[in-house]
Amino acid sequence: MIIDVHGHYTTAPAALGAWRDRQVAALKDGTPAPLASQLHISDDELRESIETNQLKKMQERGSDLTVFSPRASFMAHHIGGFQVSATWAAICNELCFRVSELFPDHFIGAAMLPQSPGVDPASCIPELERCVRDYGFVGINLNPDPSGGHWTSPPLCDRHWWPIYEKMIEHDVPAMIHVSTSCNACFHTTGAHYLNADTTAFMQCLSGDLFKDFPTLKFLIPHGGGAVPYHWGRFRGLAQELKKPLLDEHLLNNIFFDTCVYHQPGIDLLTEVIPVKNVLFASEMIGAVRGIDPTTGHHYDDTKRYIEAADLTAEERHQIFEGNARRVFGRLDAHLKRKGL
Amino acid sequence: MIIDVHGHYTTAPAALGAWRDRQVAALKDGTPAPLASQLHISDDELRESIETNQLKKMQERGSDLTVFSPRASFMAHHIGGFQVSATWAAICNELCFRVSELFPDHFIGAAMLPQSPGVDPASCIPELERCVRDYGFVGINLNPDPSGGHWTSPPLCDRHWWPIYEKMIEHDVPAMIHVSTSCNACFHTTGAHYLNADTTAFMQCLSGDLFKDFPTLKFLIPHGGGAVPYHWGRFRGLAQELKKPLLDEHLLNNIFFDTCVYHQPGIDLLTEVIPVKNVLFASEMIGAVRGIDPTTGHHYDDTKRYIEAADLTAEERHQIFEGNARRVFGRLDAHLKRKGL
Repeated sequence: MIIDVHGHYTTAPAALGAWRDRQVAALKDGTPAPLASQLHISDDELRESIETNQLKKMQERGSDLTVFSPRASFMAHHIGGFQVSATWAAICNELCFRVSELFPDHFIGAAMLPQSPGVDPASCIPELERCVRDYGFVGINLNPDPSGGHWTSPPLCDRHWWPIYEKMIEHDVPAMIHVSTSCNACFHTTGAHYLNADTTAFMQCLSGDLFKDFPTLKFLIPHGGGAVPYHWGRFRGLAQELKKPLLDEHLLNNIFFDTCVYHQPGIDLLTEVIPVKNVLFASEMIGAVRGIDPTTGHHYDDTKRYIEAADLTAEERHQIFEGNARRVFGRLDAHLKRKGL
Repeated sequence: MIIDVHGHYTTAPAALGAWRDRQVAALKDGTPAPLASQLHISDDELRESIETNQLKKMQERGSDLTVFSPRASFMAHHIGGFQVSATWAAICNELCFRVSELFPDHFIGAAMLPQSPGVDPASCIPELERCVRDYGFVGINLNPDPSGGHWTSPPLCDRHWWPIYEKMIEHDVPAMIHVSTSCNACFHTTGAHYLNADTTAFMQCLSGDLFKDFPTLKFLIPHGGGAVPYHWGRFRGLAQELKKPLLDEHLLNNIFFDTCVYHQPGIDLLTEVIPVKNVLFASEMIGAVRGIDPTTGHHYDDTKRYIEAADLTAEERHQIFEGNARRVFGRLDAHLKRKGL
């Protein structure tokens, strides 16, 4: 089985975006916000948006199951306060749940949280628990910068975030550390902010001792870990300067990287430098980079090809494609086992 | 000849830091700032700080000449206003000049600019011109985020920066795009902020059309380009989405990467993915990562070893070690030619 641990619902029917536009406009105008119940998307519309997009590509490329979460750039936690985010997150998570019900063999959910800058992350717990309990979601996306590029929240090692970590451990769900749209003109969302956040999150963990306090906490750092594997020597050296243990012991029982790196040399480096047990297959398809690479004739984000061409044994490929995902996403493994898989 | 294009004066005598502490304290207390003339560092002190540190390591490792600029993390442009930065930059640049006079075969200067958040970059021109004219400096360090991790300045393609670019072209000096200390708790200075800034600067250039307006402008992106070469497929794909030309044409006549990547797989990726003509040898020694890599027994920042072990022809290595530096740093080439080199 090939499990893609990083897919977003980037192709939701246009009614979703239109509802959000009304929510944002109401916030701006000080008029009453639209109700969640005013959004109507039929199962047929959901089915079509998936069958002609993500599922089609999964079948063409040969992946089986996607851990599916709301569109990352649409989370936009910087807009409004808690109530705005709470309504929006509930809507987006419900759509991912419905997709997982319509295509139970191919999609399983991961939750967007109703984060908001300056609001206690504990406020996200009801939505987190609802998604795990009612929707069978197996992971969450945690935004380390709900301000959208101004980085006003404390680092991930700060106690600020602990209420979320306690619930993650209680429910055995990992967090993908994933920012949203940048509203800072310096940072292009998918070309800078996403990668910077990945690097930043890793270095926050490196400088702290979070996993001493939470030895079973699991973070998935997307986009191949930002700059981290390419600068693995730098990070090993910085850990030495900071008198931290070797990275294997200090971070690699808790931090994992996905394979959203869109060319062969990048994947080769990732799989050479990072232990195979820490690498999880993912494509972020359909995401930031949708085109065809003229140098290969294949889609940039068809990352399965790169894994297949990398210098890995069959067993190592199996770990990356399936085994590691089942180890990191404990509820996913349990879910598959219940289905006899 | 082996030219290291990225060295900072991180080992300046303690009197320098003590003077800066007094300057910062005066700012805080509202008392008169210390005068530049109150700082006394003898030639012997300068000589010793270099001979026992950078020069010793250059000789051990076999590099000949370093493009030498003030300590990046000490620039701290976020402290005080223009006058504070102007006095501090003048002091730091003068020390690098004196080092270049004491060791003319081994060091040549690059200028720190007296940037300050919210202040017109044109205010930096007198110091830039002084360093070129009086000190024979061959490059500048341009901080894209003088706020120190809050990213409050416009992107590099904005006209805000044009006065600097016009002077760079007039005097034929490239800019290394290099941030300073992070005063945002989210960003570790050397483990996150530096790398993020590299990625950010590249993506700002990718999204814009700066080099149409300034076809001879040259940017050196340090630390191996941050996350850029590792994600080269992503950036090629984003350029496609943004309807930009191929990166070779769009950016690679103007953007260059140094080799401050502290392990062999990183350098292998850099030299495989980025055209050799765009890669300049550098170590940032003595910098952020000073230790010995237990997996090799050599210093992490002894980047010459990685270049020598990479899959490159003798001619390609020559380009990286010398040829490209002389092409990018036009004044350096002219200086060496005057010396018959």
